[in-house]
Amino acid sequence: MASTLSKPIAIIAGAGPGTGASIARRFAKAYPVVLLARSQSSLDPLVQGINQDGGCAIGIPADVTNAGSLNSTLKQIEQQFGSDLTVSAAIFNVASKFTRAPFLDSSAEFLDSLEATARGASNFSKAVLPLMLRATSQAELRHPPTMIFTGATAAMKGGPGLGSFAMSKFAVRALSQSLAREFGPMGVHVAHAIIDGIIATEKTKEYKKDVPDAKIDPDWIAETYWFLHTQPRSSFTHEFDLRPYCESW
Amino acid sequence: MASTLSKPIAIIAGAGPGTGASIARRFAKAYPVVLLARSQSSLDPLVQGINQDGGCAIGIPADVTNAGSLNSTLKQIEQQFGSDLTVSAAIFNVASKFTRAPFLDSSAEFLDSLEATARGASNFSKAVLPLMLRATSQAELRHPPTMIFTGATAAMKGGPGLGSFAMSKFAVRALSQSLAREFGPMGVHVAHAIIDGIIATEKTKEYKKDVPDAKIDPDWIAETYWFLHTQPRSSFTHEFDLRPYCESW
Amino acid sequence: MASTLSKPIAIIAGAGPGTGASIARRFAKAYPVVLLARSQSSLDPLVQGINQDGGCAIGIPADVTNAGSLNSTLKQIEQQFGSDLTVSAAIFNVASKFTRAPFLDSSAEFLDSLEATARGASNFSKAVLPLMLRATSQAELRHPPTMIFTGATAAMKGGPGLGSFAMSKFAVRALSQSLAREFGPMGVHVAHAIIDGIIATEKTKEYKKDVPDAKIDPDWIAETYWFLHTQPRSSFTHEFDLRPYCESW
Amino acid sequence: MASTLSKPIAIIAGAGPGTGASIARRFAKAYPVVLLARSQSSLDPLVQGINQDGGCAIGIPADVTNAGSLNSTLKQIEQQFGSDLTVSAAIFNVASKFTRAPFLDSSAEFLDSLEATARGASNFSKAVLPLMLRATSQAELRHPPTMIFTGATAAMKGGPGLGSFAMSKFAVRALSQSLAREFGPMGVHVAHAIIDGIIATEKTKEYKKDVPDAKIDPDWIAETYWFLHTQPRSSFTHEFDLRPYCESW
Repeated sequence: MASTLSKPIAIIAGAGPGTGASIARRFAKAYPVVLLARSQSSLDPLVQGINQDGGCAIGIPADVTNAGSLNSTLKQIEQQFGSDLTVSAAIFNVASKFTRAPFLDSSAEFLDSLEATARGASNFSKAVLPLMLRATSQAELRHPPTMIFTGATAAMKGGPGLGSFAMSKFAVRALSQSLAREFGPMGVHVAHAIIDGIIATEKTKEYKKDVPDAKIDPDWIAETYWFLHTQPRSSFTHEFDLRPYCESW
Repeated sequence: MASTLSKPIAIIAGAGPGTGASIARRFAKAYPVVLLARSQSSLDPLVQGINQDGGCAIGIPADVTNAGSLNSTLKQIEQQFGSDLTVSAAIFNVASKFTRAPFLDSSAEFLDSLEATARGASNFSKAVLPLMLRATSQAELRHPPTMIFTGATAAMKGGPGLGSFAMSKFAVRALSQSLAREFGPMGVHVAHAIIDGIIATEKTKEYKKDVPDAKIDPDWIAETYWFLHTQPRSSFTHEFDLRPYCESW
Repeated sequence: MASTLSKPIAIIAGAGPGTGASIARRFAKAYPVVLLARSQSSLDPLVQGINQDGGCAIGIPADVTNAGSLNSTLKQIEQQFGSDLTVSAAIFNVASKFTRAPFLDSSAEFLDSLEATARGASNFSKAVLPLMLRATSQAELRHPPTMIFTGATAAMKGGPGLGSFAMSKFAVRALSQSLAREFGPMGVHVAHAIIDGIIATEKTKEYKKDVPDAKIDPDWIAETYWFLHTQPRSSFTHEFDLRPYCESW
Repeated sequence: MASTLSKPIAIIAGAGPGTGASIARRFAKAYPVVLLARSQSSLDPLVQGINQDGGCAIGIPADVTNAGSLNSTLKQIEQQFGSDLTVSAAIFNVASKFTRAPFLDSSAEFLDSLEATARGASNFSKAVLPLMLRATSQAELRHPPTMIFTGATAAMKGGPGLGSFAMSKFAVRALSQSLAREFGPMGVHVAHAIIDGIIATEKTKEYKKDVPDAKIDPDWIAETYWFLHTQPRSSFTHEFDLRPYCESW
């Protein structure tokens, strides 16, 4: 199978419904996409949809918070695409569990979000960056390899009851900035997205339904990620926000 | 002439060679463009080039720091495009004079940069925002009207000897944030660009000439501005940076 | 008169009632203080109060936005304290005129706040920094000479209708950062205070009067400025906020 | 023993030599202090010194990263000071392990710093905040209970090879901001200190030894923490930096 798939691939971690699915479909227009999520069942419809539309997608249930498990996942990917595969785009879109609760009521799980997100972002980066560096030396590379972390306003500002969520989002931003400064000079484009607002998905359809366009369009998150990917290395964007016109911030 | 030009226009203040010219050419692919700069002579080759390439450009020498003079300029534009013209994109790209000098040696002109840039940004915004608001109610509008301010790293951080330049860049960022929060809910997209690095122009061609892609490509500043313009109001970017991969920051 | 007053002095610009008066009284415990404000009448009670309490204060009506006028003020100060006077503390506490108004309704005075504050901060810095540098070489100097700019939340974030105020506050912050980085290595301590909340003064006494301690105590602004002044050059604070416990931000 | 010690106490986590010791000595002038560190041996000289100088200190070896272990520590403290003890000041000064290493070379321990610091900060906050809230209702309380987190420049900005350290420092800042906004309205003062520079300790004495005052004086970190503690609830500082005059930033 490797022969037909020898061009660079995109990997999306957190490819569930909503933003992850939009990103997957957008990058699938240009690359074979590998989609990672907790459960196979959440991946199946997306993978089928992309393949039916003429794209090439595979879905692998994966636990990015577990470095060992993620290594097995990488091996599966190599079996599919060859051990010399390169990664052109890697998107870390794993959701931190959002909870707003009085700090003193928070349970032992308080730090789970931090650890899952920060550990996941770190494991994912470590697994894919070598395959991205390999891409930088490819003559036929169209766009610099690009790694994007989906963040939130809570990456910029803590809030009452938001401790764990904010800690995880701040930490991912710290990682993004550190990787941008380390791998940028090697030709890898690393960026952090501040997604500030409710995303329009099936789950949120009742929210602000009387205000047109009040929710972020996940397809436009995907378009913006894609646009960043097309930037040449002379002109990298490392951070940007996305908010609906009517959001106050 | 108004009849042939009745579609929305783009206005670029600070349309000199370099970034301004790239922005002008990019937006001219979609709109008639009005180019403002200090001197007619700096505008002529750009205007001719755009018109020869099938675009529609007019250049008007203008002093944006003078509200009265800018009003006359607006009248000239109305004569060309009709008094019901709308503005789809307005780019404030007027350069602050960059000087790095010991603060105590700085002359009476120290604050000129501040006043020119801040006053210019404010005058320009006041002149064009009514024409942008008018655009928001147009049925055939393809993209929300977009105003972008070209900023710099000195918009984020002062530096030794940089007082006047940093003051002007901070002030423009303050204006951009304030306008984004006031006019966003009315459907106008306002954004601030942190351009951090040397821009590749004729003047800078000797700079870092042995490091490939070490200077920002002005055409990619223009592409990024254009991309922001295409974002729907559900998904506005209000601030982003652009830096070469090898820039330290 | 110089002989009796040969020790370093403190200068407070914007020494009206409220914060300015508190700062003046605090620094008068250690230094002769020169108080600048628009009108003599607003200075008189403060000057008398300090002198009656055993301090040494003089009040000079001054327009800091006018460099020439400020030079005359400096000459008056030299006549009082000798031409070899040194300045141990310089506080820029000139209020920006706070107005919240729709941007398009704002009059020609829109930029007055910007120009008054930014120009004033710049003129004031230029006038007093040479006298502060002179202080750094004095053997008997107890604390490094300290310059503090009173800022606001609007120095960090623009807001709807806040354009002019935010521009002025951003610009002063830019100046403070630039001077800190230029004059810090010469031994001058430059800092920016983010004062976020209503200040408890005669004028604001009706505001939140049912919430105890909901307004910032101007004497504690003064205490905090004084504390910064006592920091040795090994351990300078360059920025800090002050907010009531119940402020949301 | 409780009877003699019934006044509010201060707890310092990370009370090793250097900053922690300075903070301990400063707060011991006003309160009995409980000092936590990994090993008893690093606590002993400090505890003895404070007790010899007329203060009251106890040292308890504690692992703040382990919630269960920290609970036992709290029980020990209650045995000493009574189960109705209140905490007037709680300082989280646990060092993140600083390492600068290529990201891809980092070992499985990469995230240890994150987890130790973030988990430690969270556990510590959860253990002491109830005892601080109890203090807010005490009539005789001199100063609002104060919790301060020692941070670093890496709390504001990532860097090449700094991923883990920056992640931990960003996360602690997120926690500090979240707690400040949640517990501030209840009268607890929560602040984050950006300590930017080398701290003058026995270990760093060779560093920049020819530049006078080029290292931060740990006693002035302590003085600044103490000053914050004295601020009334009308006038809380939530973030400040400390840097030597000659530091570039």
